[in-house]
Amino acid sequence: MKRKIYLNMQPLAEAYALFTDKFANHTTASETIPSHEASGRVTACPVTARLSAPSFHAAAMDGIAVQAATTFGASDDSPVSLDIGGKQALFINTGQPLPDSYDAVIMIEHILLAEDQQTGIIRAPVYPWQNVRKVGEDIVATELLFPSNHLITPPDVAALLTAGCPDVKVRKKPQITIIPTGSELVDIRTTAIVPPGRTIESNSAVLAALAVNAGAEVTVTPIIADADDTLTTNVMDAVRSDADVVVINAGSSAGSADYTVKIIEKLGEVLVHGVTIMPGKPTILGMIDNKPVIGSPGYPVSAIISFEQFVVPLLEAMQGLSTTQPAIARAILARDIPSRGGIEEFRRMITGKIGSNLVTLPLKKGAGAITTLTRANSILRIAASSEGETRGSKVNLELLRPQSQIENTLLCTGSHDLCLDILHDLLKKNSPYTLASTHVGSLGGILAVRDTMTHIAGSHLLDPASGEYNTPYITRYLQQKNIALITLVHREQGFIVLPGNPENIQTISDLAREDICFINRQSGSGTRVLLDNELDKAGLDPDDISGYDQEEYTHMAVAVAVLSGKVSTGLGIRAAANALNLDFVPLTEERYDLIIPAEYLELASIQTVLSLITSSQFSKAVAEKGGYSTRETGIRVL
Amino acid sequence: MKRKIYLNMQPLAEAYALFTDKFANHTTASETIPSHEASGRVTACPVTARLSAPSFHAAAMDGIAVQAATTFGASDDSPVSLDIGGKQALFINTGQPLPDSYDAVIMIEHILLAEDQQTGIIRAPVYPWQNVRKVGEDIVATELLFPSNHLITPPDVAALLTAGCPDVKVRKKPQITIIPTGSELVDIRTTAIVPPGRTIESNSAVLAALAVNAGAEVTVTPIIADADDTLTTNVMDAVRSDADVVVINAGSSAGSADYTVKIIEKLGEVLVHGVTIMPGKPTILGMIDNKPVIGSPGYPVSAIISFEQFVVPLLEAMQGLSTTQPAIARAILARDIPSRGGIEEFRRMITGKIGSNLVTLPLKKGAGAITTLTRANSILRIAASSEGETRGSKVNLELLRPQSQIENTLLCTGSHDLCLDILHDLLKKNSPYTLASTHVGSLGGILAVRDTMTHIAGSHLLDPASGEYNTPYITRYLQQKNIALITLVHREQGFIVLPGNPENIQTISDLAREDICFINRQSGSGTRVLLDNELDKAGLDPDDISGYDQEEYTHMAVAVAVLSGKVSTGLGIRAAANALNLDFVPLTEERYDLIIPAEYLELASIQTVLSLITSSQFSKAVAEKGGYSTRETGIRVL
Repeated sequence: MKRKIYLNMQPLAEAYALFTDKFANHTTASETIPSHEASGRVTACPVTARLSAPSFHAAAMDGIAVQAATTFGASDDSPVSLDIGGKQALFINTGQPLPDSYDAVIMIEHILLAEDQQTGIIRAPVYPWQNVRKVGEDIVATELLFPSNHLITPPDVAALLTAGCPDVKVRKKPQITIIPTGSELVDIRTTAIVPPGRTIESNSAVLAALAVNAGAEVTVTPIIADADDTLTTNVMDAVRSDADVVVINAGSSAGSADYTVKIIEKLGEVLVHGVTIMPGKPTILGMIDNKPVIGSPGYPVSAIISFEQFVVPLLEAMQGLSTTQPAIARAILARDIPSRGGIEEFRRMITGKIGSNLVTLPLKKGAGAITTLTRANSILRIAASSEGETRGSKVNLELLRPQSQIENTLLCTGSHDLCLDILHDLLKKNSPYTLASTHVGSLGGILAVRDTMTHIAGSHLLDPASGEYNTPYITRYLQQKNIALITLVHREQGFIVLPGNPENIQTISDLAREDICFINRQSGSGTRVLLDNELDKAGLDPDDISGYDQEEYTHMAVAVAVLSGKVSTGLGIRAAANALNLDFVPLTEERYDLIIPAEYLELASIQTVLSLITSSQFSKAVAEKGGYSTRETGIRVL
Repeated sequence: MKRKIYLNMQPLAEAYALFTDKFANHTTASETIPSHEASGRVTACPVTARLSAPSFHAAAMDGIAVQAATTFGASDDSPVSLDIGGKQALFINTGQPLPDSYDAVIMIEHILLAEDQQTGIIRAPVYPWQNVRKVGEDIVATELLFPSNHLITPPDVAALLTAGCPDVKVRKKPQITIIPTGSELVDIRTTAIVPPGRTIESNSAVLAALAVNAGAEVTVTPIIADADDTLTTNVMDAVRSDADVVVINAGSSAGSADYTVKIIEKLGEVLVHGVTIMPGKPTILGMIDNKPVIGSPGYPVSAIISFEQFVVPLLEAMQGLSTTQPAIARAILARDIPSRGGIEEFRRMITGKIGSNLVTLPLKKGAGAITTLTRANSILRIAASSEGETRGSKVNLELLRPQSQIENTLLCTGSHDLCLDILHDLLKKNSPYTLASTHVGSLGGILAVRDTMTHIAGSHLLDPASGEYNTPYITRYLQQKNIALITLVHREQGFIVLPGNPENIQTISDLAREDICFINRQSGSGTRVLLDNELDKAGLDPDDISGYDQEEYTHMAVAVAVLSGKVSTGLGIRAAANALNLDFVPLTEERYDLIIPAEYLELASIQTVLSLITSSQFSKAVAEKGGYSTRETGIRVL
């Protein structure tokens, strides 16, 4: 096995220029399609009107057509009487052609009709062409309707039809072929049970969806195993097909099974191998038979970011479109984000509006974690020249959702509880609000409240001295703030163990047994405080416990560690054990509260939260999780 | 004919509430679809993960799998040697499962391989689980992936597949039936030549495109004539079909052919008839057999705005989505916009970025002019309680295009010339910039430059005293500014007449003939100044000329007035006559310049303009129009 060597590593802008310069004139051919179906397509040449609109002088109102001159002098004192149906006036409806001898329309509201409906009295004159839509008032035949490279909108369709253009010449949709590769991959559509050690292929579906959104038509080939010949044949088949762009996913880095770069090199030219972005570094930009061929990274977030940076702009350019720029907003950064110099980072962020500011928090970095992208509503780009951003600074975010939706995002930072997911679901069902929770432990949540970086903090911090939950910490950390403390649930904490409790863990003292390997929660979490308190009461020392230094950040992560057999047990809530069909040995019950600055209680979003947690929908869903009580849910403690 | 009476006129918010309250629980049924096809759909219930991801401990890097403990102590001074392929270490690629006895991966870059490839030397330890993606690190089986009512994005598709969900329960697409009505309408797909007095039906296509964008499936019925029985039958057929929503377009006001309200009243209930918005007032919101039935206005802009305000949010709500809010931006208003109190106005605006501010100009008001919507890139809503907005004030705009595209819009305010359309087309073809021209006459353009309300002003203002174009006016009005004056074209001005010049118009004196009816340009336009100068030279008085007081705003509008037979002639450019196959009697040649504040010459957009006007593409296209010379194009006069 060789060292990873990137053949031609480039910064983003340079890589993009090296690539797109080769394909600057690769716009797709044009085709003529019905204007009815043209919304979302791009004009291939200037479009000029064939007919004027209106194509005749038309009544702009319901009323009577007249010669304006016959109405001159009409007033309250000297009303004018018109013979309707004779030569003087004629009933006319909006849109009807104005007969030749008339040059104005009097609105029906301004006419007093005699009983015979044949005489109309008016008390004010009209001027020539009043209430008339003149020929060409909207569109003049021969005039430019749309230039080349114009993205046709729904209203544009109406303009095309009105201007007598039943069809329009547009750019053909670019064709893209996506080739998923990897011996470890399975197609979940054809594989009911995923064999151990195999991975579900998901990149081709997301890249296909991104390509469709960019106006392309997509072919996804079956999964190709990591065998040079098959892949070579498939790549050449794709290049020789109608495809305008070919994407090979993955095999773009330089492991022993990473054939992509060798194949592109053999069949064509590698322009760029490696881009100094993260995620997305192992991107290959190449060319075979004068067609763009991209080797896209295997990790899902890398694959998506690389595709958005290189393939989407190429697909847009092929249709004659400029690159769509994401909407940008300024936000206050809620945490330090260190970054490695020399590489441009795309951090996935959760952003919400607190007071008049947007506040943004980073999600995990891992390129392998697709949920960092599905949970994010914004992206923070940290330049290669930067070593990161500091908490409290103002940063530019690229928005992944409409700004209104980001402003309707309620930030919930602090301890994790499964009931927050129930609340999230109920909010989406019943309101325009989204609950975005990030898990930093109870103490982290309290500090976020202190610094105006969250709307809500979930907390279950026991004060060992008083035996009280949360209030002593609020007194200590939040004395400057007017705080509402509202109980969400009571919940059982205990030992999560394998089904049947094979290692017979019953009490806190069992953690000190030599055969037991424990997994801990991070310091600052309520569960950690609880553990330390129980150890203290039992006279045990952390050093006595194997695995005390191994930390996870959520109850579910603890449960997964137990399920995977890597540890014997961890402290967590019953619902987490239930969720994975594990067993549970109760240790204590604790109170889990929501800490909310009192000033936010007036917000419609918080009002909705408070009303939902006391609903029967909520208590019913909580009961189904097991290990919870809602006996004090919604009670304001402070 | 009766007076127009709106049965139940309501302000927008009240009308919306009256309507949507009736249909609050009308979400569509759910259906299960492949996750591969789910991008853009909306979850019908909470989606939980069926599998964890990774589903096994997996190598996060290419390298060798080891037990971390065997690497402890490795350093530059005491490298550790590992037997690869034996029990100590194993080659592993990214994504492969970590065999049971190992708990870490050493990156291939950090291993010095012996020649036999079987021994690896390392100079630093790894800690347990380093470079390993642990089970459930991304997704834990049973956890909430997405709540109800979640709009599925492309990355979400990857999360669904990765979490073992090959399909997903989503809301069915709402079905909408659109019934175009009107005896005057023709379908341009089936009617090669539009008969005189008939109108091309275009609303159903634009409403259908808007509905598709809102996630609906659309049925458009054939055009129904204004005959009560046919329409009644068709409406009932639609209501009894699978349609979730029925839209009748138009016949929603109260003219003699406006049957819609009567039909809804007869078959069901009219909730709202008339909304105090403009355009969009004659909207009917009704209900038949518990289904929403909308009578939508006939004017295209009214139809679109009414549909966007009432039908699009309904279609979104039926899928469980909140109403999409348009992006908002602040802009400086370049003109006064008076507004009638008591009615909420939706003014179509052109907006561009000048310096650090967005600047916005209103387009025409007419609800019949679809081009006011196709040319607009933003909407200014003027509240019913307001009597308008004043020039220079900051207003909130709803953006119809991405902000980046609006910021790439070059404002060109002033005199109209057809060569600006050529420039517009070349810009779209060769750059990300859009030229948005509004026609206010040469003097209007100069004043816009003075007030920093435009990037470019087109001008051909003759100074009669000196015989010079533009420079005397720049001295007079723009002495505070550093101005670049750049010639665009020379062009012939003359009399636009019917083919064959049947009225034998040859000189300026002919305008004073009794049998000649003239059409003028607005005051402040260069053509008006030219006319007045020529009249003066010929010793003629405006009062001598019949039609001197009738004004049009563009050359093309003058040409259309001649073509329609309403006037004998007007003064304009040869290209306008050519465009409509009219004849042209030359009077003089004039210089048409671009006035650009010198500080903008540095802008990439203006640089592009200056390079394009001196291109052969430009001069060739200009020559084709006729009546132009590019002999001095691109020369900087000032």
